[in-house]
Amino acid sequence: MGAEFQMNTQFSAGIQAMLPLLYAAWADRHLNLKEINAIRKRAASLPFLDETDKAVLLEWSDPARPPERELFQQWQTMGRNAAEQLPEDRAASLAELGVILGHAAEGNAEDRQQFWVDQLPVLTELELGLGGVEETTYRGLFPLYDQRKKLTESIEEATVDPAALQAVLDGKYAGTIARVKEILQRPSFERNMLPVKEDFRELVLAWCKELGEEGIGALAFDEEYGGEDDMGAYAAAFETLGYHDLSMTIKFGVQFGLWGGAVANLGTKRHHDKYLTATGKLDLPGCFAMTETGHGSNVRGLETTAVYDHDTKELIVHSPSVGAGKEYIGNAMHSKMAAVFCQLIVGGESKGVHAVVVPLRDAEHNTLPGIRVEDNGYKLGLNGVDNGRIWFTRVRVPVENLLDKFGGISAEGTYHSEIENPSRRFFTMLGTLVGGRVCVPRAGMSAAKSALAIAVRYGLRRRQFAADPLKAETIILDYPNQQRRLIPLVAKAYATQFGLDYLLERYVNRSEEDMREIEAMAAGLKSYATWFTTAAIQECREATGGKGYLRENRFADLKADSDIFTTFEGDNTVLMQLVAKSLLSDFKKSFKEDGNFAVLKYMGRRMTTIVTEQNPISIRQTDREHLTSRAFYQSAFEFRSRRLTSTLAQRLQAYIKGGMNSYEAGLRCQTHMIEAAEAYVEALVLEKSLERVDALGKNHPTYAVLKKCVQLYALHTIEGHRGWYLESDYIAGNKSKAIRKAVDVLCAELRPEAGALVNGFGIPDKLLGAPIAL
Amino acid sequence: MGAEFQMNTQFSAGIQAMLPLLYAAWADRHLNLKEINAIRKRAASLPFLDETDKAVLLEWSDPARPPERELFQQWQTMGRNAAEQLPEDRAASLAELGVILGHAAEGNAEDRQQFWVDQLPVLTELELGLGGVEETTYRGLFPLYDQRKKLTESIEEATVDPAALQAVLDGKYAGTIARVKEILQRPSFERNMLPVKEDFRELVLAWCKELGEEGIGALAFDEEYGGEDDMGAYAAAFETLGYHDLSMTIKFGVQFGLWGGAVANLGTKRHHDKYLTATGKLDLPGCFAMTETGHGSNVRGLETTAVYDHDTKELIVHSPSVGAGKEYIGNAMHSKMAAVFCQLIVGGESKGVHAVVVPLRDAEHNTLPGIRVEDNGYKLGLNGVDNGRIWFTRVRVPVENLLDKFGGISAEGTYHSEIENPSRRFFTMLGTLVGGRVCVPRAGMSAAKSALAIAVRYGLRRRQFAADPLKAETIILDYPNQQRRLIPLVAKAYATQFGLDYLLERYVNRSEEDMREIEAMAAGLKSYATWFTTAAIQECREATGGKGYLRENRFADLKADSDIFTTFEGDNTVLMQLVAKSLLSDFKKSFKEDGNFAVLKYMGRRMTTIVTEQNPISIRQTDREHLTSRAFYQSAFEFRSRRLTSTLAQRLQAYIKGGMNSYEAGLRCQTHMIEAAEAYVEALVLEKSLERVDALGKNHPTYAVLKKCVQLYALHTIEGHRGWYLESDYIAGNKSKAIRKAVDVLCAELRPEAGALVNGFGIPDKLLGAPIAL
Repeated sequence: MGAEFQMNTQFSAGIQAMLPLLYAAWADRHLNLKEINAIRKRAASLPFLDETDKAVLLEWSDPARPPERELFQQWQTMGRNAAEQLPEDRAASLAELGVILGHAAEGNAEDRQQFWVDQLPVLTELELGLGGVEETTYRGLFPLYDQRKKLTESIEEATVDPAALQAVLDGKYAGTIARVKEILQRPSFERNMLPVKEDFRELVLAWCKELGEEGIGALAFDEEYGGEDDMGAYAAAFETLGYHDLSMTIKFGVQFGLWGGAVANLGTKRHHDKYLTATGKLDLPGCFAMTETGHGSNVRGLETTAVYDHDTKELIVHSPSVGAGKEYIGNAMHSKMAAVFCQLIVGGESKGVHAVVVPLRDAEHNTLPGIRVEDNGYKLGLNGVDNGRIWFTRVRVPVENLLDKFGGISAEGTYHSEIENPSRRFFTMLGTLVGGRVCVPRAGMSAAKSALAIAVRYGLRRRQFAADPLKAETIILDYPNQQRRLIPLVAKAYATQFGLDYLLERYVNRSEEDMREIEAMAAGLKSYATWFTTAAIQECREATGGKGYLRENRFADLKADSDIFTTFEGDNTVLMQLVAKSLLSDFKKSFKEDGNFAVLKYMGRRMTTIVTEQNPISIRQTDREHLTSRAFYQSAFEFRSRRLTSTLAQRLQAYIKGGMNSYEAGLRCQTHMIEAAEAYVEALVLEKSLERVDALGKNHPTYAVLKKCVQLYALHTIEGHRGWYLESDYIAGNKSKAIRKAVDVLCAELRPEAGALVNGFGIPDKLLGAPIAL
Repeated sequence: MGAEFQMNTQFSAGIQAMLPLLYAAWADRHLNLKEINAIRKRAASLPFLDETDKAVLLEWSDPARPPERELFQQWQTMGRNAAEQLPEDRAASLAELGVILGHAAEGNAEDRQQFWVDQLPVLTELELGLGGVEETTYRGLFPLYDQRKKLTESIEEATVDPAALQAVLDGKYAGTIARVKEILQRPSFERNMLPVKEDFRELVLAWCKELGEEGIGALAFDEEYGGEDDMGAYAAAFETLGYHDLSMTIKFGVQFGLWGGAVANLGTKRHHDKYLTATGKLDLPGCFAMTETGHGSNVRGLETTAVYDHDTKELIVHSPSVGAGKEYIGNAMHSKMAAVFCQLIVGGESKGVHAVVVPLRDAEHNTLPGIRVEDNGYKLGLNGVDNGRIWFTRVRVPVENLLDKFGGISAEGTYHSEIENPSRRFFTMLGTLVGGRVCVPRAGMSAAKSALAIAVRYGLRRRQFAADPLKAETIILDYPNQQRRLIPLVAKAYATQFGLDYLLERYVNRSEEDMREIEAMAAGLKSYATWFTTAAIQECREATGGKGYLRENRFADLKADSDIFTTFEGDNTVLMQLVAKSLLSDFKKSFKEDGNFAVLKYMGRRMTTIVTEQNPISIRQTDREHLTSRAFYQSAFEFRSRRLTSTLAQRLQAYIKGGMNSYEAGLRCQTHMIEAAEAYVEALVLEKSLERVDALGKNHPTYAVLKKCVQLYALHTIEGHRGWYLESDYIAGNKSKAIRKAVDVLCAELRPEAGALVNGFGIPDKLLGAPIAL
């Protein structure tokens, strides 16, 4: 027998036509009588078998002699090869595969085509004669078809409808979100990660321009400037942009949220009239020049000065040193103008940080005299955003360019402000910019949700081939380890989103008194959500192995682009310390206001905690009903938050009593502060998630699944802190183990819902993009 | 007063000359009598002060009226600005700054230069008259100088010499390492991350070619092929390449380690003679075509076939389906040849997986008939490596191309092998390729060490400016939170390196009986070290904030390039399950061999553990001496490893007794398996680190610091697992808290050594590259 034949096998055409049937008959590793008889009886009368073939068939249908592993594998391989020649959207029959294989064994000779097509009926009869062919047999032969089917099935088998989940998440912003998704699926938004930064930046600029023309950028502006005065809709749009490309999202945020936001919130009517309409359409690209090289997290210490010259009624904007250059300014290369934050000096006296509009470039896009702009170069990600450094050398602008909502200069050349206290003035100004911290984590969540949708959908369609081809293949997400990796993250994504939604509502409906609380929440949730984003995308990349490393599958850009989210709009560790300081001041205030009574009340609360929660029975209670009860996990979250804050206060006090200054004491307690802040955010996220699910009502189609997600979020979080809970005698060792098992069980129970849960994020396939997820 | 003057201030020249002194006098926020007198007395006679100036000075030296915060800050800013005009390598005196400022206030008029220089002596006298100026005052004015000085000081203040640490790490391979570093610092190796993959690949190819010509690629080959027969030196060289560029490192590994290794280890003399010399010089680029799209982690199930045709004495290599294409093959676009792994079929019988050398391209670099190669496209990282997919359509090669060390075809056309058992034959072949798993984690560690060196050095030179300019500025690494982030990682880098060094020695001196153990160690250490790499680089990126996001500071590429290390050369989670299986078989074997006695012995050991370690006193013991004693932490590591393995065995047994098949039982215990494997690796790393430090002896200059590193590694690891230890009643809550404090203390104690520890990695500044670290 020569080796030169189609499909590279040593079989005759007749035998080859029979292989799919033989494969099916042997797939459970033993032949039953019915199968033997069907094959042997039919073999005698089949026109395409010669005597040698019949002898081989007799041998291969001998129940005492199952085929060798390698032989069996070859049958499978050949069947698959034949299956690849069929349309991908349907599974063929074994008979059809037989026809293809028989014809192929004859070199696909044209004159033999009809002959083989004619054999379909007898082969089909034989296939039916075999009786029930196991589904795994078909799966072995039709992997591609099966992957698609499996994913659809996985979503169908869920008890919850993705559309209902999406309606819950989108809420009242569903209209805006749908509108943005429609725009993003236009041909002009075809994703294209151009490797050379200048090209990529041009593309991103064009995308932002189109969004501006569609009115998306102006959503938060007043109606007279082309907007809808709807900050909530702006945030929802921003979040939706995160499903497309994060460079575009961030550049959009710089242009409309930061530059536009500075003009809108720090400027007065003359600035609005002059700049806002053009800004909203991106006819006037602008940037937000706050951060300086020497002052990352310390806005108050900015060194750039704006000195008022009363003779000419001008402000002289100047960078007094190299380190006073504006650093990492987004949109710096494309901008015509900048809102420059500087120390305002009037009559030789510094009035603290104010923002001044400074033109950067002329109509031909040449930088104006006194302006120096330097490209920040390539970055880890977001290379579609044109970040740069900017220096000013005694640049004169009219005094009208001062954004003077909170402090201005009169015609007589004197400074005036409604807020006399410079410190309060400064923080009021900064407070108007907290919108960035409300929005950024939402875009981060879009990146995390995209990654989770890709990894979970891949986990549902991809099967791991067992070393032994006769063994059933396992869907990746059926591996407990994969469930553990991904499903708690999906649950946490829902919970965190609920927390962020609450923040957004509070921010949209804010009053001045709320601001301190909102700022603390924004700082905490921004950090929590962006740390989650980084961790979730990394886990998804690793869970999808080498496939996840290919850029086409999107983790590369999701990871690289979102990595800076933990740093910009405030470094997370710095923000968390601000949250802790706010917690401490609340804590102290409640003591101060109520005097000793508060102390007693607080101690009383602790006593109650100890009696009801930390008694020997409760800390050992392990039944599932208890563990998944709100009474257990909500108390556990609150206990942790309360305890970490009060011990923090005690520690700080002890250090200070011991003669340490408060700065040094704060340093010593830095990790404790971050932990207390995290506990506060977690308690907030849990509380708001529970409220959100409660508000749906028990009859809502998503109630049961979302409740389970919140339970999983809660128990998985407690599990993560089990060292602390054990240390604090809040749970005993047996309870800690029981929590781990409860998490396992919840993961397994949510496994059939996983496909629906990630589809509930509502990311259109076109935006999801990754081939491994489609 | 007009506003148009140099340095943008409202001060007269005379006052401006005095500002540095005023700044210094007020730097501690109150004036003492000596300072007041010095300023007021001198002011009367200074030639550059007019009457107005003198009045201002009187006012500003009034102890009852300290300067406004903004004014004081302006003085500092101006002082710094002046300082920037001085050479960067020295701190000037306050008097010098006064001269610069005075002259600048007059617009730097040339005819006034001499006048101001002449004022130096009086100003100097005044400066001396102020008495001791605080160092922080100078720091406030000379940030750049101070950064440099600080870094140098930090390394000088260490008790350990970086060179001594480097000598320990480099060990007997110091010569090879130095040689490779010399090559990498040549101008031809200038780092250049070209954005377009084709350009970058060409550059990386040229680098590899130069390394080949220098004999680095051939180090592991026999001397007759240009090598030194030194696998250890090869591994050390590979690790050193990781300090330059990881694309180059991986491509180097593919060419010399995988392609060269396949020829050397699976081929016989005729292959060596034909290919090795050219391979070592990269005159013959080759690739290693094992993985298939459909078979990521299952080499045994490869579908590519090589059918022997006795008539022509040829092998016909064929990819029977799209999914049987070779996937992610490094060097695929540049290679002339490939070692193709396929099912060898002789006389119609499959003989299992073998490797065959198949030419891919002709001299003009056109692919040969039957060969199809597709570029894998852009990846998350390593875009300088040309990965591709390869399919074969009935490609005929002479039978001599079979790499036949473990199985060949005789002249008569029959298959023969010294290893009759096909399964043993397969694993023996695979075993020869374990070198990849020995080397890859070493390159990963180089990436982690680079990141740590950059972040720690940045943390030592960068000061965080306090919100209040009068407060002392803090070196970033003095923040406890930064110490917590970075120093345990530095300690772990040392410990992990010691573990990897042990593995390398065992691998270099291996005998056949050792192979199973070495394979388990390699699988475990590869996973442990590469997971560490990913986590460490991420932490370093976040610890350096926005600076760390700039590509010039290297985290971008370190992160992206090393991210796949957890997946290639075996997915970490799969490898860890292999490790666990090996642990289980050791466990079972010891039971089997010694019968009940072993069980008793094991139980006895457990009883002893319980008596000596888990008694109520021991689990609560918190004194530092105990916690940092080897007796405590080594026992804790061993206990965890032993306990996790034995409970794993018990759980599996219980499932199987309950009627579950072993596959399903394994699935259920997947996370437990990974945990047991990790505990085994950690115990190994600790044991080998302790041995390494012991071997140095107490008088070795690095002994004390390295011992402390190992202690920190140990306690930080236990702290990470504190939930488990608490659950297992191995430690009580108070002890867990004490461990946390001990970690804090060790971090603080190692803080002065941190600069020396990262310099001990021996990464030349030129290779480190990051501007923030230099």
